[in-house]
Amino acid sequence: MKYSYEYPRAALTVDCVVFGLDEDDLQVLLIQRDLPPFEGDWALPGGFVRLEETLDEAALRELSEETGLKNVYLEQLYSVGTVNRDPRERVVTVAYYALVNLTDHRVQAATDARNAAWFAVDDVPSLAFDHDQILKMAHERLRGKVRYQPIGFELLPPKFTLRQIQHLYEVILDRQLDKRNFRKKILSMGILVELDEVETDVAHRAARLYQFDRRKYKRLTKQGFHFEI
Amino acid sequence: MKYSYEYPRAALTVDCVVFGLDEDDLQVLLIQRDLPPFEGDWALPGGFVRLEETLDEAALRELSEETGLKNVYLEQLYSVGTVNRDPRERVVTVAYYALVNLTDHRVQAATDARNAAWFAVDDVPSLAFDHDQILKMAHERLRGKVRYQPIGFELLPPKFTLRQIQHLYEVILDRQLDKRNFRKKILSMGILVELDEVETDVAHRAARLYQFDRRKYKRLTKQGFHFEI
Repeated sequence: MKYSYEYPRAALTVDCVVFGLDEDDLQVLLIQRDLPPFEGDWALPGGFVRLEETLDEAALRELSEETGLKNVYLEQLYSVGTVNRDPRERVVTVAYYALVNLTDHRVQAATDARNAAWFAVDDVPSLAFDHDQILKMAHERLRGKVRYQPIGFELLPPKFTLRQIQHLYEVILDRQLDKRNFRKKILSMGILVELDEVETDVAHRAARLYQFDRRKYKRLTKQGFHFEI
Repeated sequence: MKYSYEYPRAALTVDCVVFGLDEDDLQVLLIQRDLPPFEGDWALPGGFVRLEETLDEAALRELSEETGLKNVYLEQLYSVGTVNRDPRERVVTVAYYALVNLTDHRVQAATDARNAAWFAVDDVPSLAFDHDQILKMAHERLRGKVRYQPIGFELLPPKFTLRQIQHLYEVILDRQLDKRNFRKKILSMGILVELDEVETDVAHRAARLYQFDRRKYKRLTKQGFHFEI
């Protein structure tokens, strides 16, 4: 291989922090390494960037190869270039993150036979490389983001209750929110449309259903806002 | 050079978008290329990352070497991995950005004899590589940021007038703001302390001076807020 830039160069990887939400928990998708270094340890899905693919393409390819997950909307998080983060040689990684609905994204048998699984974010084992730090950074970004962008459109069913959207925020922020206060604030954002329908097939008293005002949601996502919770 | 990852690899660069503010304009620091490709064209300061330095260190070193600028607080913006963005070979770049006080950061003769100069953001020539796009991305990030983080601490003198801080926001947002409305909003953020002093040596009526409440400013920077302007 002949390069026009004739100096030693770092290897380049991508790593993906995929958060999944189910009814109870914020979870993160991990793979178990089957090669050294950190053989047998859990790690973020990821791998080396090929010359003919963009960073985004590399992230999607690695995620699909290692976990079977496809059609995930990944956002770039941060590039990490600590000099000795990989014991083999200098490796710079571009980290990505995503928030997906867990029930839509069951992990399939990974094509390269690595073990892949969801872990509750509160209960993650010590990860390979500096992946603990990358996971922490992604979690902070997600927590920060709910304060200035609406979330939930891709995560909630088309019609949902205020209890469900409060739960979504509670899981991401990892704390209980005051019901009355939360409802006042979420409604004042003007992105929810109250429907003339209530829940069906529930044991508790059926609650009012809402849906997102797609146009306002989109505008707020672009403009940003401040949700003080 | 023997690598443990035995495949062709991209070269890795850093590029810096340094915005400068003076009394009138938002400016950006550019260098003129003295080698192909794009010889003679203006470009963002930047260059190849060395094996023994972090990405942040590479950005600071390149900025210093090419423009003489030191002690700048650079924030990582985005990594760009479009496959053919450099005609020589595959080059992935990690873009950084900063906002500095122009009067504190006069450009010195660059040590490697390249031409370096400040350009008004509205009046930038067509740049080398995809640097136009990176500049645009940085400008958007800066505009977005003033909506959820306070700015100005490093840019305004220790004591300043409301006219000065409004001007700062106007320059970044590139539009006139309503004086009455702006003042109400900036004061309601609670980060300004009204002083018992007025401007001196001014031709117009001397205006009240303010300073930042450093503790509240810091807290807001961390927490974020929403400044609807």
